Amino acid sequence: MTGNPQLTADGRLRHLLSIEGLPAEILVQILDTARSFVSVTEREVKKVPLLRGRSIFNLFFEPSTRTRTTFEIAAKRLSADVINLNIATSSQTKGETLLDTVANLTAMNADMFVVRHAESGAPHLIARHVGPHIHVVNAGDGRHAHPTQALLDMYTIRHYKGGFDQLRVAIVGDVLHSRVARSEIHALTTLGVPEVRVIGPRTLIPAQVERLGVRVYHDMAQGLRDVDVVMMLRLQNERMDGALLPSAQEYFNHYGLTAAKLALARPDAIVMHPGPMNRGIEIESSVADGAQSVILPQVTFGIAVRMAVMSILAGNQG
Amino acid sequence: MTGNPQLTADGRLRHLLSIEGLPAEILVQILDTARSFVSVTEREVKKVPLLRGRSIFNLFFEPSTRTRTTFEIAAKRLSADVINLNIATSSQTKGETLLDTVANLTAMNADMFVVRHAESGAPHLIARHVGPHIHVVNAGDGRHAHPTQALLDMYTIRHYKGGFDQLRVAIVGDVLHSRVARSEIHALTTLGVPEVRVIGPRTLIPAQVERLGVRVYHDMAQGLRDVDVVMMLRLQNERMDGALLPSAQEYFNHYGLTAAKLALARPDAIVMHPGPMNRGIEIESSVADGAQSVILPQVTFGIAVRMAVMSILAGNQG
Amino acid sequence: MTGNPQLTADGRLRHLLSIEGLPAEILVQILDTARSFVSVTEREVKKVPLLRGRSIFNLFFEPSTRTRTTFEIAAKRLSADVINLNIATSSQTKGETLLDTVANLTAMNADMFVVRHAESGAPHLIARHVGPHIHVVNAGDGRHAHPTQALLDMYTIRHYKGGFDQLRVAIVGDVLHSRVARSEIHALTTLGVPEVRVIGPRTLIPAQVERLGVRVYHDMAQGLRDVDVVMMLRLQNERMDGALLPSAQEYFNHYGLTAAKLALARPDAIVMHPGPMNRGIEIESSVADGAQSVILPQVTFGIAVRMAVMSILAGNQG
Repeated sequence: MTGNPQLTADGRLRHLLSIEGLPAEILVQILDTARSFVSVTEREVKKVPLLRGRSIFNLFFEPSTRTRTTFEIAAKRLSADVINLNIATSSQTKGETLLDTVANLTAMNADMFVVRHAESGAPHLIARHVGPHIHVVNAGDGRHAHPTQALLDMYTIRHYKGGFDQLRVAIVGDVLHSRVARSEIHALTTLGVPEVRVIGPRTLIPAQVERLGVRVYHDMAQGLRDVDVVMMLRLQNERMDGALLPSAQEYFNHYGLTAAKLALARPDAIVMHPGPMNRGIEIESSVADGAQSVILPQVTFGIAVRMAVMSILAGNQG
Repeated sequence: MTGNPQLTADGRLRHLLSIEGLPAEILVQILDTARSFVSVTEREVKKVPLLRGRSIFNLFFEPSTRTRTTFEIAAKRLSADVINLNIATSSQTKGETLLDTVANLTAMNADMFVVRHAESGAPHLIARHVGPHIHVVNAGDGRHAHPTQALLDMYTIRHYKGGFDQLRVAIVGDVLHSRVARSEIHALTTLGVPEVRVIGPRTLIPAQVERLGVRVYHDMAQGLRDVDVVMMLRLQNERMDGALLPSAQEYFNHYGLTAAKLALARPDAIVMHPGPMNRGIEIESSVADGAQSVILPQVTFGIAVRMAVMSILAGNQG
Repeated sequence: MTGNPQLTADGRLRHLLSIEGLPAEILVQILDTARSFVSVTEREVKKVPLLRGRSIFNLFFEPSTRTRTTFEIAAKRLSADVINLNIATSSQTKGETLLDTVANLTAMNADMFVVRHAESGAPHLIARHVGPHIHVVNAGDGRHAHPTQALLDMYTIRHYKGGFDQLRVAIVGDVLHSRVARSEIHALTTLGVPEVRVIGPRTLIPAQVERLGVRVYHDMAQGLRDVDVVMMLRLQNERMDGALLPSAQEYFNHYGLTAAKLALARPDAIVMHPGPMNRGIEIESSVADGAQSVILPQVTFGIAVRMAVMSILAGNQG
C-alpha cells in the first residue's frame, strides 16, 4: 500500500487509526471541531442531526465499558444509530474470522466501525479491507495506539495552556505497556511541544524511546521539575505482581503523584489521567481531586473530541 | 446536610430515593402525571419529545433485566438517549470506586442516573455527590427502598379503588428482606390508608415494624379478613433453603395465596404482586391469573409511573 | 385453534412463524416490499419513519449476536424503539415461565416480539398467547424454522435468477439438524421451484425428506450437476466430533464445496451460505470469496427483508 492509510488521496482524514503519521493540521482540525461540540454537550438538548440515519458499530473485541460508553454517547448525540457488539461472546467463538465479521457488518450497510482489540494492528487490518464509504476509528489496540485518548488530552492541554509551543510535558508511569503514552508522545511532538519527558522505572520505559523525541527520567523529582503538564498513566493491575515491579507501595513511593512531588512542577501545572485511576498507587487522592487536576474535564472534552472525529470522518468519502 | 436530600430548596422533587420523607402532595403529583402517560403508552406512536437530547444512564450494579427494561422503555418513550451500564463486569472490577464512576459519567454530561445496587444507601450516596442539574432515581437498593415499585402500586390501588382513605391493605410474605414492602408501607401510610397489615411468619417480619403504623398478623386467615387490597411479596429463592423458613410447600400451605384464602378478603379485593412470581409458592396460579388479579395492569402502570418520575425530575433544577 | 395462526381472519400476515403454511402471494409480497427497502439501506440517511414510536423486543433465549444485530438494525432503520433482552441471564433464571415473561412485556405495551429459542415451537406458543395488536417473528427455533433466513435466500435467488420456475436448486450439508434447510425447502417449493435437491451423508439427511418434494443425493458430484443455485448449510461444530460424522477433513473431501465441484453446476450458478462460514470445512475459501458467491449480498438483502417483514406485520392488526 502506498500513501497513508488514514488519509484520502487528497489528504483528508478517512480513518483514525493512530496519531503517528497524521499532520498537525488534521489534529488541529479535530480540536477546532471539538470546540463547537463542547457547547452542544452543555445544552439541555444535547443532540445535533449530523449523522442521522448512519449506522455506527462499536466493535469491542476487548471489554471496556468506559470507552464504549464515550463512543456510544458521542454517536447518539450526533443522532446516529449505534449498535454495540461485544465480540468475544459471539460469532468469533463460532470460528468466524475478524475479516468475515467485518465483511458481514459491512454488508449490513455499516458506515463506521469503532474498534477495540487486544491485538495491535487489528483496526488497520480492518481499514485495509473496507470499502471507500466506510470509516474505522481505533478505540485502543494492544500496546499500539489509542488516538482519541491522545486527542482529548491535547484538547485539554490547549484549553488550559492556550497552545503547545512553550510547554514542558511529563508522562509518568508504565510507558512500556501503554498505548495511551505512545499516542500522547506522537500528538505532543506533532503539535510542537518543545520538551516531552517520560518518567518511570527502567523496567517500564521502552528501550530507545528517545528516538520518539522524548527525554527519559527515572527520578520523579528531576522529571517533574518545572513542567507545565503532568500526564499520569494507569498502572495495570497485572503488572503489580510481576517481575517488572516491586510492591504497589514501593511504586507509589517512587512514582506515585503526591502533593509534595507535584510542588516541583510549575505552580500552574495541570494534572491529567486517562482513567480509571488507582488511587493511592499511581496518584494520591488529594492530587486527583485537587485544584490542579483536570481529570474530569478530560472526560467532558473526550465526548466532544469523539463527536468531532466521527463527524469529520463521515464527511470525507473516498 | 440539612433538609430533605430528595427535595429542592423550594420543596420540589429533585431525586427519587425513597418514599420515606416525601409529602403526600408529591406522591399525588407523580400519580396524576402518570395518568397522562398511560394514554401515551396506549397510542400507536408511544413517544413524546419531553426528554429529547437528555442522557439517562441505567446504572445497574445488581442485575435486573426486568426493572432495567421498564426504565429503558420509559426513557425511550420520553425520547431520551439511554445508556445501559452493567457495572459488575466493568470499571468497578478495575478498582474504580462508585463515586469515581459516577463522577466520570457526570463529566460526560449525564442528566439522570437510574441506580440499582445491592447496598442500601448507594443511590443516596450518589445523590449527595452530583451537581444540581443531575437527578438520581433509586431502582432498588439493598433491603432499603424501591420507590417506583411502591408508586406504581399506589397508582394501581387508586385506579381500582378510587382513593386511599377507606381501605384495608394487607402486605403478605417476606417483609423482613423486602425493599418493596418497606416502600409500600411508607406510601400507603403517607397517602392516608387507615389500616395497613403485614402478614408473615415470625422469622420474616421485622421487629418493631408496628412503629411504621402497621398491624402484624402471623395467621393468614385473620390477616386477610375484609381487606380491600392484597399485596403479595416475592419469596427470594435463597430464603427457601435457609433457617428462616421450613420447606416451600409448608410456606405455601401457610402463606401462599389460594382462592380459598382470598375468599376471606372483601369480594372486590384486588390481588397484586411485584413480579416475577413464584407460582405455587407464594401464589396459586389460578389466583395470579384470576379475575381479582391486577398484576399485569401493575406492569402497564409501572411504565407510565416511571415516565412521570423522570419527566418531573427533569423539570426540577437545583 | 382453527385456521392458520400466522394469518389474520382475512388472510393477511399476522405473525411470521414458519414458511410452512404461507401462501406464495405472501412470500412474494414480502420480497416485493423488501425491494423498496434495499434502496433505503443504500442511502446516506438509512431511515424511514414507518415504525416510529413502536416498541420491538428482541427476545433471545439462545445467544446469536449476528441474527440479533440484523433485526436490531432493521428495526432502527424503521425508526422503532428496540429493546434487546438476553433472557438466559435474567428473569428466566428467577424461575419465571416463558409465558409470564411475555405477558409482562406485553403489559409494557410491546408491539412486536422477535424470538430466538432453542426449543422448537416456542415462537408459536408465544403467538398463541398474545393479543391481537402484537406480532411475533420467529428468528430461529430449535430445529424447526428460520423463516427470515429463507426469505432473504429467496430474495437473493430472485435477484440473481429473475424468478423461480425454471430453477434447479441444491441444498448441501447437515439437512437433518438445520432449521434453515427446512425453511428453505418450504419456500422453494411454495414459490414454484421445479427441482429441489438435498445433498449430504445418510446420517445428516432426515428420513422421508422426499415427502417435502425434494430429491436426495448422497453424492455431491451427482447432486450438483446442472444446478442453478447451490445453498450451503453451516456444519455445527458439535456435530464434527460425534458419531454422525467422520473427521472434518473427510467431510470436506466429500461435501465441502470446492471450485472443482462447483464446476459441475451450471456456469452461472450462484453460491449461497447463511453464515457464519466454516472455511475449509463446508466451503473452500476461494469459492466463498469467488465470482459466483452471493454470500455478502445475502446479508445486505437480509436487512431489507427483515424491514419488510416488520413493516408488513405492523400494518396488519387483528
